[in-house]
Amino acid sequence: MAETVVVCEVGPRDGLQIVKAIMPTAVKHRWIAALADAGLPQIEVGSFVPAKLLPQMADTAEIVREAVKRTETSNPNLTVVALAPNLRGAQAAYEAGAQRISVPVSVTEGHSRSNLNRSVDEQIAEVGRITAWLRAQPRHVPTEIACSTAFGCSFDGAVPVATVVRVAVALAEAGADAVALADTVGYGNPLEIKAKVRAVRQEIGDKLYCLHLHDTCGLGIANALAGLEEGIRKFDSALAGLGGCPFAPGASGNIVTEDLVFLLESTGFQTGIDLEKLIAARAILREGLPNEPMYGNLARAGVPRTFRRAA
Amino acid sequence: MAETVVVCEVGPRDGLQIVKAIMPTAVKHRWIAALADAGLPQIEVGSFVPAKLLPQMADTAEIVREAVKRTETSNPNLTVVALAPNLRGAQAAYEAGAQRISVPVSVTEGHSRSNLNRSVDEQIAEVGRITAWLRAQPRHVPTEIACSTAFGCSFDGAVPVATVVRVAVALAEAGADAVALADTVGYGNPLEIKAKVRAVRQEIGDKLYCLHLHDTCGLGIANALAGLEEGIRKFDSALAGLGGCPFAPGASGNIVTEDLVFLLESTGFQTGIDLEKLIAARAILREGLPNEPMYGNLARAGVPRTFRRAA
Repeated sequence: MAETVVVCEVGPRDGLQIVKAIMPTAVKHRWIAALADAGLPQIEVGSFVPAKLLPQMADTAEIVREAVKRTETSNPNLTVVALAPNLRGAQAAYEAGAQRISVPVSVTEGHSRSNLNRSVDEQIAEVGRITAWLRAQPRHVPTEIACSTAFGCSFDGAVPVATVVRVAVALAEAGADAVALADTVGYGNPLEIKAKVRAVRQEIGDKLYCLHLHDTCGLGIANALAGLEEGIRKFDSALAGLGGCPFAPGASGNIVTEDLVFLLESTGFQTGIDLEKLIAARAILREGLPNEPMYGNLARAGVPRTFRRAA
Repeated sequence: MAETVVVCEVGPRDGLQIVKAIMPTAVKHRWIAALADAGLPQIEVGSFVPAKLLPQMADTAEIVREAVKRTETSNPNLTVVALAPNLRGAQAAYEAGAQRISVPVSVTEGHSRSNLNRSVDEQIAEVGRITAWLRAQPRHVPTEIACSTAFGCSFDGAVPVATVVRVAVALAEAGADAVALADTVGYGNPLEIKAKVRAVRQEIGDKLYCLHLHDTCGLGIANALAGLEEGIRKFDSALAGLGGCPFAPGASGNIVTEDLVFLLESTGFQTGIDLEKLIAARAILREGLPNEPMYGNLARAGVPRTFRRAA
C-alpha cells in the first residue's frame, strides 16, 4: 500500500490573486469543480480580504459555498480551504463554510510590513486570536499557519534557520493545528529546504505539515523532492504554475500541480489525483484567463507511456 | 573548499540537432565563445554524422577547430567534446581536434534500430573499435559512452535496471573511459535515477561519471538532485533547455543549464561558471534561432539577491 501525499491546489487563491485579470465567478466554479473531480484532496479556493485590496477575491464566500457542495457530490475526500490574514477574515471564512483556514505569517519584518501591515509578532498574536475564536465555535475548523518568506525575502534577503524556528515554535504555541513553510518568493534550494524542515521538526514535530513552494528559479520540483526526503507529506501547488511573485518580475508562480503529481505518483506515493483529468482542467483555466502564461512540462509533452500510478 | 561538479553544455549538439532551423556557423562560433567565456568546463559542440542526415551538424569540424582556440584564450579549463556514433565519426572528431568524444549506445533495441540502425550489441562492438583506434593514436582523447534510453524508451517502454547494468558493464569492458546514463526521452524519475545509478556504480564504480537528463515531464532538475545525492558529479544540460525529443511531441529539451548551475552553486558545489554571463549568452542563441522556444525559470526571474556562489 503506497504512502499518501496530500496535494493542495492553491491556484484559485495564490494564482488568481497575483494575476491582474479577474476570472469570472462562473468560470471559477467550473474550474474548482473540475479540480475536485480530478480528485484533489485539498483546494484553497480563495482568500477573505477586503475586495478593494484584492478584487480578484471579492467572490470568495460564494466560491467557498459552491466548492463545499463538491464534497457532497463528486469528491467526498475534498477539504475546502480558504485563506484569512486576520480574525475578521477567519470569521468570514468560517461563516462561509470553509473546512480549513490558512493564515500567512511572514518570518521577515520587511515582508510582514509590506504584505500584512503588521510586525511579525503582531501577526503571531493575531493567529492566537484566530485559533482561540475557532476553538470556541461549534464546527471544528483546523488552521494551517504558513511561515511566509521562510527561504528568503526580497526585502530582507537571506533568512537564518533560527528565525524560521522561532516563528514556527511561536505559531505552535499560539494554537496552530498545522504549520507550513512557504518559499513565497521562490529563492529556496534543496539544501536549505532540508535544513529548515529538519530544524523546525526538531522543535514542533509533525505539527510541521506542509511546504508551499514557488518555481521562481527552476528549483521548485527539486525542492519538493528535498521536502519529501525529509518526510513532508503535504505540498501546495497550482495548476499550470499559475501566478508569479509580486516581488520578482518575470517569476513563474507556484510549483506546477501536474508536474508535482507526476513526481509523487511515479516515485511510489499515492495522491488520489487523476493526472489526465488534472491536465484537462487546464482548458477551463485557459478559458478564464486567456492571456496568462501557463507553465508545466508534463502537460506539454503528455503523460509518458511508461507512467504507472502508485498502487 | 567546495566540491566541483562538471557541467557539460550540450546545446550546440543535442539542442541544435533536434530543432529544424539551421544556426549559421558564424553564430555558432559566437555562441560557443560566449559559453566558453562564461566558464563552462565542457561544451559538446557538434556531432560527426553525415550532413545529409543532420544538415544542422554539417559544419562540426570547423566548429571544433574554432572552439579549441578558446582553450588557449578565454577558457584554459575548457574541454571541447564532440559526439560520434561510429568509428568513422570518431576518426573525424579526432582529426578535427576534439578533446573528448562521446558515443551513444541505446540500451533498448527499438531506439537502437531507429537511431543508429544497429542492434545494441553491434553498437557495443563499435565502441570497442573506437576505443581501440583512439588508444593507438598519438594524442590522448578519452571517450564517454552514453547509455541512451536508460530511463525509458518511447519504443520499448520501461527499462529494467538489469538491462542498463548489462550495457554499462559491456561498455566498461569495451574500453570506455567514462560511462553516462542518459534519460533520452525524459521519462525518468528521482527514484529510478537513484536505483540505476546505484546498481551501475556497484558494477563499474566511478567509471559511471555523468547523467544526461531531459526535462520532458518537469522532473529534470529534481532528477539531477537525485543524481547528485547518489554522488554523480557531471551533468549534461543545454542553455535555455534547447531542443526537445523527436519521440515526444511538445517535450521540452535538455535540462536548463542556467537552472542546473543555480541548483549546484546554491547547494554548495563549485562549477566555475559565471551565472550572469551564462544568462547573457541566451541573447546569441535567440539571435541564431529566432523562432525556437527558450526555457528556464532563473533567466526569466533573474538571479535572486540571496544567491551566493559556492566558495
